Amino acid sequence: MSLNISWSVLDTQMMSRAIQLARKGFYTTRPNPSVGCVIVKDNQIVGEGYHQKAGEPHAEVHALRMAGEHARGATAYVTLEPCSHYGRTPPCALALINIGVKRVVVAVEDPNPQVAGRGIQMLRDAGIEVDVGLHRDEAYALNLGFMKRMESGLPRVTVKLAASLDGKTALSNGVSKWITGPESRRDVQRLRLRSCALVTGIETILVDDPSLNVRYQELGGIKDSVTEAQLLQPLRVILDSRARLPLSAACLAVVSPILLVSTVAYPAKFQAQLPSHVSCLVLPAIAGRVSLPELLSYLGQSCNHVLVEAGATLAGAFLAQGLADELVLYQAMKILGGQGRNLLQLPDYQTMAQIPALMLVDERKLGPDTRLILSVMLDTSLIN
Amino acid sequence: MSLNISWSVLDTQMMSRAIQLARKGFYTTRPNPSVGCVIVKDNQIVGEGYHQKAGEPHAEVHALRMAGEHARGATAYVTLEPCSHYGRTPPCALALINIGVKRVVVAVEDPNPQVAGRGIQMLRDAGIEVDVGLHRDEAYALNLGFMKRMESGLPRVTVKLAASLDGKTALSNGVSKWITGPESRRDVQRLRLRSCALVTGIETILVDDPSLNVRYQELGGIKDSVTEAQLLQPLRVILDSRARLPLSAACLAVVSPILLVSTVAYPAKFQAQLPSHVSCLVLPAIAGRVSLPELLSYLGQSCNHVLVEAGATLAGAFLAQGLADELVLYQAMKILGGQGRNLLQLPDYQTMAQIPALMLVDERKLGPDTRLILSVMLDTSLIN
Repeated sequence: MSLNISWSVLDTQMMSRAIQLARKGFYTTRPNPSVGCVIVKDNQIVGEGYHQKAGEPHAEVHALRMAGEHARGATAYVTLEPCSHYGRTPPCALALINIGVKRVVVAVEDPNPQVAGRGIQMLRDAGIEVDVGLHRDEAYALNLGFMKRMESGLPRVTVKLAASLDGKTALSNGVSKWITGPESRRDVQRLRLRSCALVTGIETILVDDPSLNVRYQELGGIKDSVTEAQLLQPLRVILDSRARLPLSAACLAVVSPILLVSTVAYPAKFQAQLPSHVSCLVLPAIAGRVSLPELLSYLGQSCNHVLVEAGATLAGAFLAQGLADELVLYQAMKILGGQGRNLLQLPDYQTMAQIPALMLVDERKLGPDTRLILSVMLDTSLIN
Repeated sequence: MSLNISWSVLDTQMMSRAIQLARKGFYTTRPNPSVGCVIVKDNQIVGEGYHQKAGEPHAEVHALRMAGEHARGATAYVTLEPCSHYGRTPPCALALINIGVKRVVVAVEDPNPQVAGRGIQMLRDAGIEVDVGLHRDEAYALNLGFMKRMESGLPRVTVKLAASLDGKTALSNGVSKWITGPESRRDVQRLRLRSCALVTGIETILVDDPSLNVRYQELGGIKDSVTEAQLLQPLRVILDSRARLPLSAACLAVVSPILLVSTVAYPAKFQAQLPSHVSCLVLPAIAGRVSLPELLSYLGQSCNHVLVEAGATLAGAFLAQGLADELVLYQAMKILGGQGRNLLQLPDYQTMAQIPALMLVDERKLGPDTRLILSVMLDTSLIN
């Protein structure tokens, strides 16, 4: 559809502005998508806005409120198809119709089964000109997790890794502080902040005893766009198939939701001792461990983006089972030697055709380290 | 000394030209250094040249021949201190004096014990103005191997490594073709070409059966500056402490010098069967293996730069013993998993302070791979 449209300079500028606005909500809208909207009348911006937080007005509502009567006969640029359903807010398509906009330019369709073209259809049925596809890729990229969840019911999964140049995460005695530098560790805070959930394994809890929360003071430049009050802590998910979590774990001391996932129910007595911010979930086992496909189906009900921060076994399982979309590897310019601990446990592949297919999508320096972002390619089905 | 000199624009331009000329000999002068020379009279270049091959005229001789009588009263720019001794050619300092140059600008002193300031002194004693230190670092960097050998008697050692992102060189069954791409493998040809010697272990010969030669057709852009006739094959050094080299090894079929190093003499009958391009050397053992310090002392007699292309044990030994100056790591954007083979065997370090100290000095893309060049920092003494 978009191939037949030749966009004007004004169109491309206005949609760029709408995407810029949408980005402002990148860390705060989840599990909703980040959306921006610009209303233009007689070549002038008369209204603009972005979605800030789930439960609060959508981008279109902010922009229409600002535009007021100027919105009549105007063009609205929206980074995501306006919604057509009554959720926590009334449908935005209806608001655009009621105010009397003349044309709506949409970057990308909303794959949400409750919308999925109905928003666009509603507008067209009301006689509004609708053009779709301007800056589609950019708008899509803003909401990779939301898009995947709406399309598949599963969250996008990022596996965070940190290792030396020879792929080691610790010396043989477990010493790992510090392989990567402070810049990399701060960047992990950003990964956590953009995630709806963090997944780790009980081994990581028992060995490292991490709090697994987002620490506002470590957010660096992000603090300019997110206030401490707006900070959303990701759900902390701990896979503990044999119910080994100690009540002294540091993560329990941070009052923010935790989901303990096991393959057998925790003893009632133990559950009674857990703080109220901890919930327990029993999922089916595969080979004695929590079924990761079941876990992702469960999380997909409310999580756009899941960050796996785990040891070699659990992180490797996500990759080996074809459940990871992306790897973020913090690489220290160090060599630890063959006795160090391995980064990822994978099946004992016998041919190069069996290894995961990766594509480097970004590489940058973070202090002394290099951060690599790799997409896991779906066209290679992994053999397990 | 150089701090007190303010170089003119002409000086800096002419020395840059001399360095550019020196580079033309980078792959062909060994074990001599690469040197360039420019002769300038009345702001005009009247002669220039570079050293092309050991045994042939030095850079100054080429430049003086071109300048002829114009050299009288001229300024000579030389990237390395002119020699003062009678070697295969007469001293260049004398040639400059005899022709009557007025001034000589030298980028860097020659640490060769036979020169070491005597060339500069000869010129000054003859009443010639000599300025030293223009583009010193660049000129030094042209001859890192030669400089180290002259200063210490030891060759510069580069350890070539190739691995996946998780530091694996092969699957558990040994399959390693191909982890890195053709661009990386071609770049290794360049590393070999710049080296006086390649060092490998018998295990690599037994497992991979490499020829370990430079293949002219794989040299890419270097072919523009090196003809096939100029190609210098590095000495192939095979460490074989227990005399296990099979007569069928592919490397033996390539007629170019090989040095077999063992800790006990090969049987006379075996030695008699070896082709005439193979020499044998017995060196002391350390823990049953060839002593690497002894090996480097031996090679330091004639080799500026040694390239180690070996397995995890031998490559790791060079690094762990503080004998490596540089690592060149070709990194494939792949993950092989913890069952794969480790890149480097090092001692079982117990603290992060014990690991080798590395500094990233260059990073670039080679096709799908990344090539990292890391300097091994000398200020950390490794504990073994």
